[in-house]
Amino acid sequence: MRIEIICTGDEVLTGKIVNTNFSYMSQKLEDVGLSVHWGTTVGDDRQSLLAAFRLASQRADAVIVNGGLGPTIDDLSQEIAAQAAGVELVLNEDWLTTMEAFFTKRSRIMPPNNRKQAMLPAGAELIDNPVGTACGFALDIGQARFFFTPGVPRELRRMLEEQVIPRLLARGGSPATIFLKRFHSYGLGESHVDSLLTGVEALEPDGSVKLGFRAHYPQLETKLTVRGTDMDDVRRKLEPVQTEVRKRLGNFIMAEDDQTLEGVVLAELTRQVATLALVETFTSGQIAARIGHLPGGEHVLRCGVTVRDRTALHKVLDIKGFALAGELTQEMTEEVARAARTHIGAGLALVVLIDLDEGPDRIDFGGTIWIAIASAEDVAFRRSRILGGREWVRLGAVELGLDCLRRYLHRLPVMERIDFEKTDDTAAQG
Amino acid sequence: MRIEIICTGDEVLTGKIVNTNFSYMSQKLEDVGLSVHWGTTVGDDRQSLLAAFRLASQRADAVIVNGGLGPTIDDLSQEIAAQAAGVELVLNEDWLTTMEAFFTKRSRIMPPNNRKQAMLPAGAELIDNPVGTACGFALDIGQARFFFTPGVPRELRRMLEEQVIPRLLARGGSPATIFLKRFHSYGLGESHVDSLLTGVEALEPDGSVKLGFRAHYPQLETKLTVRGTDMDDVRRKLEPVQTEVRKRLGNFIMAEDDQTLEGVVLAELTRQVATLALVETFTSGQIAARIGHLPGGEHVLRCGVTVRDRTALHKVLDIKGFALAGELTQEMTEEVARAARTHIGAGLALVVLIDLDEGPDRIDFGGTIWIAIASAEDVAFRRSRILGGREWVRLGAVELGLDCLRRYLHRLPVMERIDFEKTDDTAAQG
Repeated sequence: MRIEIICTGDEVLTGKIVNTNFSYMSQKLEDVGLSVHWGTTVGDDRQSLLAAFRLASQRADAVIVNGGLGPTIDDLSQEIAAQAAGVELVLNEDWLTTMEAFFTKRSRIMPPNNRKQAMLPAGAELIDNPVGTACGFALDIGQARFFFTPGVPRELRRMLEEQVIPRLLARGGSPATIFLKRFHSYGLGESHVDSLLTGVEALEPDGSVKLGFRAHYPQLETKLTVRGTDMDDVRRKLEPVQTEVRKRLGNFIMAEDDQTLEGVVLAELTRQVATLALVETFTSGQIAARIGHLPGGEHVLRCGVTVRDRTALHKVLDIKGFALAGELTQEMTEEVARAARTHIGAGLALVVLIDLDEGPDRIDFGGTIWIAIASAEDVAFRRSRILGGREWVRLGAVELGLDCLRRYLHRLPVMERIDFEKTDDTAAQG
Repeated sequence: MRIEIICTGDEVLTGKIVNTNFSYMSQKLEDVGLSVHWGTTVGDDRQSLLAAFRLASQRADAVIVNGGLGPTIDDLSQEIAAQAAGVELVLNEDWLTTMEAFFTKRSRIMPPNNRKQAMLPAGAELIDNPVGTACGFALDIGQARFFFTPGVPRELRRMLEEQVIPRLLARGGSPATIFLKRFHSYGLGESHVDSLLTGVEALEPDGSVKLGFRAHYPQLETKLTVRGTDMDDVRRKLEPVQTEVRKRLGNFIMAEDDQTLEGVVLAELTRQVATLALVETFTSGQIAARIGHLPGGEHVLRCGVTVRDRTALHKVLDIKGFALAGELTQEMTEEVARAARTHIGAGLALVVLIDLDEGPDRIDFGGTIWIAIASAEDVAFRRSRILGGREWVRLGAVELGLDCLRRYLHRLPVMERIDFEKTDDTAAQG
């Protein structure tokens, strides 16, 4: 099935907003085994919209149009859809009723110009929007089925997943159920994970499991798309493959599906009724900012301390009789972790100290990251060297610190060689 | 002049990466008074590329193609450009020499497949790439002038600004010089600023100054695009308009052009040889993270402290004889600021405490933000209430805190009513 996407709106065309709806839709379709062949972006302009609809109707089997369903005069999608299909606009009484109820529920009167949103091309199939006043609709134009969706991301997402994708799959004659399984890892590059997972798809020999990746440094998402007749069939097919992926990626899998690294860390700390003290330098509060604001963070994050000159810790953490000036050492990092835990009065302390290179911010600019985690029982330590510019080092250090804490909490080895670090014999051992 | 953009590449088409190049290009063109009329996205596929080039060549006067200039076999732009123009690919000796020098300078031998990057359609005009091995080129296809640019954002940016835009302006017969003046503000919404600036364009009566906006909560960018015969002419035309904009937006302008709020704050702290202590709660280190990692931040940020339960400050800031439990008050906020300054040993302390609503994260979820700034001389205070969900409150509080510090450092009133805050009589006064 040949699918196209048409994004409409002056704000997208002029670059006032970045078009994240396009990549979102395209990715969601890929996740269920469908592919987008062509993307078009046009403004709120009658002539361009009509030309875009006509061209797509000649090339594609299915077209998703995004935007232009609002109540204002520059929202033209219904009007031009009717024109392209050679039909009139007619009032959809059902949607008018739904909209009026929408406003009534919010104790408001529906403004008259919202009525426009219930005017659909004759013969169009209404597509429900449970979270807004812009209904979607489907309509044949030329040889293609067009699906019109709202530009508001939250509304688009609901409609695409619940309404449009099932219709596309039905048209494509695909099996009824498609499921996406995701694994989030840190520390292994895409090509490395790809080679580690060689052959896993073949564990389900009928080809209904497809492996894919999405890299967004410092994390990598490994995706398994599974097709089946129903969810039982999908689970049966997924089981041997996901077991093998978990085995091969092992401790590097830090979260699955909708989980996040910080969410996993927070959940485990909450489960252990543990409190946390944090000490950061060059990451400057970014580690605390990943955890602290989450619901439940208020019960876990006891205190986070950021300094750029570590001698400032003498006073804040009441460290006496131990010099914090000079070269960073393992002993010093561990001492700071113990002091943070004790002085702040937390169950655990995570300390991430960074010895940043001197010189210009280039691709070979790096930093050495010194990490210690202290509990009442022991102190774990890890040292790593990351190259790639200031921002690369900062992002990597935030992720490495949080991942070490996850490993520590799950009683996994804190030290496992990652692809992003530069090792020499001493640094590799930490 | 009718301009189109064609973005190529499977990673963009499948949504693996968000297409920020498109919005970047479109915006840069808008900034110099040019408009994009149509955008096309296609994958690394011969048939689609050829069809996209041909369609654009029939509609547009100028087309910018992005991507597909790399050394690998799925980089097809030169090949399909030649096919669409009906010419052969020929080796550009100049670019081959440039590439070889590029590798020699990095003490590397040029891999054989990079030679492909010097194969250009016959008759193409070479466009220099000072930062990579993918040269750009320009070529007529049909009635349109095509400009081929690399997909790597850093390389695209240099080439677009230094090479492509001047050529487009020359083709469009525009005045030789276009200048973009930008003002960054926080606290006033786009429609409010628009109404405050009514008529400023007319201060330059020949219509060569155009006003525009770009909103990205919590900041707003106000843009003046000025056309002139040369930079002297531009400066003369801009002067009365920018003076008026500065007058009308007043203290709300926190940065201009490439400046950032955090950069302005850091520069002023550096100029005053001042050090800073920070105390945050729900913003969880995000304020520190805006300043601490910047070059020079190491001399200014003495210590940042994040707590979610403010009673933890008793120990960390050595606050005795003053209760931190219970309702937040102005007195308590100011006391924390004084204690942070003294105990951390900094010249200034910024304290941003947040009293977050209870309940689900909805559009009417809010927080009350209590801000104090202490110096050796005095303490400034500001209270504000922001509604709009957890993330909206968090982002707003980070910006408000930093902006209060900017105002304090520049001896401006810390309290000026902003559009994002909900006021009642007491809260408005702080």
